[in-house]
Order: sequence, then C-alpha cells, then structure tokens
Amino acid sequence: MTEVSRRRILGWTGAGAAVAGIGAAAGFAGGVAATVPTAAGTSGVVGFRGAHQAGIVTPAQDRLHFVSLDLTTTDKAAVAAMLARWTEAAERMTAGQETTFGGATGLNPLSPPTDTGEALGLPAASLTVTIGFGASFFDKLGLADRKPAGLAPLPGFQGDRLDPALSDGDIAIQACSDDQMVAVHAARNLIRMGFGTAAVRWSQLGYGRTSSTSTAQKTPRNLFGFKDGTNNIKAEDDPALQKHVWVQPGDGPDWMTGGSYLVARRIRMHIEVWDRSPLQEQERTVGRTKADGAPLSGTHEFDTANLSKGGGIPIDAHIRLASETSTGGIRILRRGYNFVDGSDGQGHLNAGLFFIAFVRDPQKQYVPMQRTLAKDDAMSQYLVHTGSALYAVPPGLREGEHWAQQLLT
Amino acid sequence: MTEVSRRRILGWTGAGAAVAGIGAAAGFAGGVAATVPTAAGTSGVVGFRGAHQAGIVTPAQDRLHFVSLDLTTTDKAAVAAMLARWTEAAERMTAGQETTFGGATGLNPLSPPTDTGEALGLPAASLTVTIGFGASFFDKLGLADRKPAGLAPLPGFQGDRLDPALSDGDIAIQACSDDQMVAVHAARNLIRMGFGTAAVRWSQLGYGRTSSTSTAQKTPRNLFGFKDGTNNIKAEDDPALQKHVWVQPGDGPDWMTGGSYLVARRIRMHIEVWDRSPLQEQERTVGRTKADGAPLSGTHEFDTANLSKGGGIPIDAHIRLASETSTGGIRILRRGYNFVDGSDGQGHLNAGLFFIAFVRDPQKQYVPMQRTLAKDDAMSQYLVHTGSALYAVPPGLREGEHWAQQLLT
Repeated sequence: MTEVSRRRILGWTGAGAAVAGIGAAAGFAGGVAATVPTAAGTSGVVGFRGAHQAGIVTPAQDRLHFVSLDLTTTDKAAVAAMLARWTEAAERMTAGQETTFGGATGLNPLSPPTDTGEALGLPAASLTVTIGFGASFFDKLGLADRKPAGLAPLPGFQGDRLDPALSDGDIAIQACSDDQMVAVHAARNLIRMGFGTAAVRWSQLGYGRTSSTSTAQKTPRNLFGFKDGTNNIKAEDDPALQKHVWVQPGDGPDWMTGGSYLVARRIRMHIEVWDRSPLQEQERTVGRTKADGAPLSGTHEFDTANLSKGGGIPIDAHIRLASETSTGGIRILRRGYNFVDGSDGQGHLNAGLFFIAFVRDPQKQYVPMQRTLAKDDAMSQYLVHTGSALYAVPPGLREGEHWAQQLLT
Repeated sequence: MTEVSRRRILGWTGAGAAVAGIGAAAGFAGGVAATVPTAAGTSGVVGFRGAHQAGIVTPAQDRLHFVSLDLTTTDKAAVAAMLARWTEAAERMTAGQETTFGGATGLNPLSPPTDTGEALGLPAASLTVTIGFGASFFDKLGLADRKPAGLAPLPGFQGDRLDPALSDGDIAIQACSDDQMVAVHAARNLIRMGFGTAAVRWSQLGYGRTSSTSTAQKTPRNLFGFKDGTNNIKAEDDPALQKHVWVQPGDGPDWMTGGSYLVARRIRMHIEVWDRSPLQEQERTVGRTKADGAPLSGTHEFDTANLSKGGGIPIDAHIRLASETSTGGIRILRRGYNFVDGSDGQGHLNAGLFFIAFVRDPQKQYVPMQRTLAKDDAMSQYLVHTGSALYAVPPGLREGEHWAQQLLT
C-alpha cells in the first residue's frame, strides 16, 4: 500500500527518488523528526512520529484549522490509499516542506501542481497535523468490530443547540501552527489530496490558544477576558497523561492503545451580555479574579482553590463544578481556540470558544463533567453549544507506518 | 463635546485624572505616538495621529478584524459622543493600553469592566484602527450636503453575487495587528462602547496580508499560491500616494482632504477548481510564474512586464488587465487579507480574499478597473464577489481632535 500510494503521489513529478531519499537519509524515527533538515530551517519543527500523535501534548500553538470530512466512498482501499498519501504529505509539511518535492511550482506544467503553493517560503511554524476517526467512519466502511466503545454517541446536554452542519463527521484533521497560513495550507492540501474519497463537512478556524499544554507556557485569556485552563493537564505530568489522556492497554481495541479521544464542541459565547455584567458577577461566575486569575479563595493564579463553605467560591462557580474534587477525580486535557465567525445577523459578533479536549474515555470523563456543567454552571447562561463531534485518535506512527496501518491494512 | 465624552468614559472609574495625565504628559502630536510609553513597552506601536489615518500606508500587519456597523439612532449628538469615545479608546489601545485606565480588572466591582480584558498582557502588536463612513451614514444623519460624490453607489459588475448581509454599512472599523487577539479586542471594545448607538452589520476576520504596503516587506502569496500585489503602491512612493490614494484639495468636500476611500470586496475564490487546473493555465491566468512571481515576459519578480504582442503575457492575463498601461494610468493601494470562513456546505472551504483598496476616487479608479476585470480577466472564472462596501475615510487627527470633529461638530 505504501509503495502504491508513494508512486501515486510522486509519479506525477518524476522525481520520486529524490523525495524518498530525504525521508530515508533523515532516518525518521519516533520523536526525532525535529532533526530533519528542511528548506525553511529546522526552527519550529515538531516531531511527526512517536508513541503518540503530535498536536496533543505539543505546547499549544497559536492558530488552528480544524476540518471534519465525510467519506464519499465505501471503498476501503481508496480510503487507505488516501490516508497513506496524507501521512507522507503531513510528515513533509510538518518539517516545513511542500507536500511533494517541487509540488507548488510544478515539475510538469501540464499537470496541476501537487502543492497549492501559498506556504512557499514560510517556516514550519510548529505545524502539527492530528487525525481522528468518527463513529460514522467505522459504520461506513463496515468496521463495526473495530469501533471503540468510547465512540458511543454523546448524549444531548441541557441547553445544546447543535447544528448538524457543524457537528460530527467521518474524519477529523486538526492542523495547529503558529502561522495561520501554515495551518490552513496543511488542511487544504490534505483536503485536495482527498478529492474523490472524502469531502469537507465543516471547517473551523481558531486563533489564540485558550489553554496551555505545557508548564513552559503562560496561561492565556479567553473571550470572557479571564485566564483559562490554569489547571489543565500539562505535557510534563506523565502520570496524569497516562491516567486521563492516553488509552491504556485493555481499555478498548488494541489499535487504540496509546491513542486518545478528541471531543470538539463549538461553543458560542454571548460576549455582549457578558460585557454588560458587573465585574463581581463575572468573577463569581468563573470563581477567579479577572486581573490575576487567582481563585476567589486565594491571591495567586496557581493557589489551590479552597472549595470549603467559607472559601468564598460560589456554589455554582465554573471552577468549582469543573474541579477534580467536584467531579470525583475527572480531568481532561483542553486544547481549544477562540473563534470569531462574522456576525449573527442580529447586531452581535458570532464569537466563542472552539473547545477541544483529549481524554482517555469520553463516556467516563467528558459526559459526566458536561452534564453537570450544562445544568449547574453559572457560566452556562452565557454559552450555547452549537456544534459537537467525537473522534477516536489513533496512537502515533512508528517509522514506515501510515495512518491507515492500524485500521485498514 | 470632548469634555462631555471624556467624562462619560472616565467617570465610570473615578480615575479620570490619571488617564488624562497619560495623554497630556506624552504630548500626542502628528506621527509621534510611537514614542508614547506603554505598559507593554513601545515595541510595535504605530502612531495614532497624523496627516492621515494609520492603517493605510502602515506596513500591512498580518491580521485583520473588519467590522461594518449600522447606526441604531439618528441622534447626531449620540453618534458624535460615540465617535469621541472611540477615538480615546482607539488611541489607548494602539499604544498597547486598555480602553480606559484599569478597565479590564474593574475599578468598581459593581460595574461592568470598561475593557473586556482578553488583551491584558499582550503587546500593542502594531495595532491600527481606521474608521470610514458609508453613504448611508450621511443619509441617516441628514448630512446630504457633506456627503462626498465619491460615495456614489458602486455599479453592479458582471458576475457579482452580492449578499446584502455582507455588504455596505454606515461605519467601518478596520482593525489590523500582528496578533489576531489584539485586532479582535480593539474592534470588540469599540462595538461594546457603541451599544445603543450602533450595532454590528457584518464582520470579517482575515489572516496573512495579501499585499505589501512598504518596500521593506516581502511580497506575500495569496490562496492561489501566487505572489500578490507586486506592483502595489508602497508607503515610500509619496508622489503615487498623492496621485492615487490621498484626496487632494479641491477633490471633494474640504473635510475629506487628506483622507481616502476604502473599497471592500469579499471575494470567494474557487480554490478547489483552481487546484485542479494545470500549472501552465494558472500561470497564464495570472501572467506570472508561480515559483518566483516573475512576469511571463521576464525572469525576476520586479521585472517590468512586457505587454507587447511577443511578450508572452496572454491577452486576458490578470496582470495585463490590471496594469497601469491597460487601465490608462489607474493605480490603487491594496491592503487585503485571506479568509477561510468554514465550509460552503457542498464539500468545499468557504475561502477567498477580503479585498481592501484605498483610492483617491473610487468612481474613477476602482469602478473602471473592476468593470474590465469582471468582464475580461481570465482569473474571474475562479472568483465570485459576495460582499461589497464603500466608505469615505477621513484624514488623520491632529492633537485634541476626535473622529466626529470634521463631520458632526
């Protein structure tokens, strides 16, 4: 399969040998792709291969292009070929290269270029490309026996106003980068390479990470103006990752071990209503001060919240209800982005949070947590969930593997 | 008016004197705002005051938030007060400060914060805020006698498919910055401060400038993967600015002298169709090579295009039809951005160019140029114009002036 798809990509240009040479010479192996030489220099190159996919514990980049695609075929071989092509292209783009050698400028003027070209000359900009499969992927391809139980449909939550056109999908591509052009270029080229096999169902741009995923990052602010994700799971906390993020042996189908689940929720924030509410109400809604992000029971951002009766954190404050204490030990790895998608036609910005979380088991982590938040969280009155999706995120790739390997070959 | 509006802003916080002091001590004057000390340091601070508004010849920043608003009142005094508030807030934000002193963290916990807070701790990031007025602004406020002839409605062009919900509007805010959060924060806070006087009609985010406006900038690539705007008017070419961009004495109403006109066109690009067309066709459509952006008659990007019969540039190539030679001397200052607004529901990205041009007279520059391009440009088959707007952009502000000064007081 690899051989076929490589031919398919490289046959167009007649320079297949040169490209294969780059990969071979660099000796791609788990986590060492950062040493691959690239035209743009090695600055900002995230390793592509490893035990886990990049783009999960990678320090959250500043920009997102998230695309959900639906298969337009039930031909497993065609889907496998597409995923193999995607793997090669994603690995190259992650290293700051074009999708194929000479692709953008075209080695054959009578053929369409094999790279769209808008990222020519731009650095890798910490690009990561992360792939996930929705429940419908397994249904369409007759892979019911391989579908993880974790992909059971999310229940409806109180207040949901989900738009099917912004929800679900067979395959997710999460492209993150510190340069929006680089993220869009990556997603667009995978879409392009999928013509005839998959088509865009929905697409979401995001800017300004709303969480840190590394202790080296400062906590960012969300569109409510508050520091967000202070207690997020960080890349440096391996025990927490093993417990809450990575699928463990015995959890589900073997092919998912080392993988994770991606929960995406498009959350419209009523920022105009928020902006008219008093500071005190905002702070009591969140449970933190606006200036420093300190819990209302403390003085510094990373002070442990005192959730006892006298601590000063209201009973319906967001940080109380989302806390490990209140949820009985649930934690998630958040990796969301802000969005502003034009206006709502009623005088307001169509803005909010594109929530992304990685969890070991969505049914045991996201579902009970969100059930409580939707019902009791004071913040919920300022939020409406308008899109929802759930994907199984396979583990990382070893040298020579591609994204279809575990499932389709 | 100034006194009243300043009180109105600052009265909320009880710290008016402190804020007034910042402005006074810094001695704001034309073009020197870059020396104003800010909490974020002075790096990336663009001067707010001067002969022309910032955000036109300012080296094009990387991110855009463009907002069109409609007045919700015909009360001139209310509109003037809003514009005066906007001026003070925009000047502060341009310098990397909050909209008002202590606004985000709230000096009175029982009042809504006077800054939304999400940009706290972020640098100025070269923010510019540029204001324009549409024809309907003058109509609504009974200012027909002050409406410039340049604001005559743009005619329909061949192939236009304009959505009224993405077109026109009474007031335009163009917020540009190298940080998307900073641009959105600026626009959002002006919107917030306009509650009750103006409401959002439409809003457009953009990333990756599609033109250079300074000789110090490299030519960027657009979503067709080609270098764009090679022959754009640059800030360093004052004779061209005077001839093609700045309204000259005698051109129109006196209050517009030193101003300009902003033409905004939301141009959907059929990138999927483009991506399937051969390199040769792409290059003949543009009239330039994809690799280097050289005219097909030459070898380097800045080679003068040879438009003679034997030059090799097709008769319907974009750069031929848009050239000064073909248009009889027309030039414009382009300052557009890429956009990707989700998907179109038919398997494609909803992507394209948010075209912005500044011109001395839209009727004599943009209209004849676009009439020709819409009809004859080979590129037009890949484009659909879905939004359109035209605004009169007043000149810059002298010390002590605000945006309502020339028109409403």
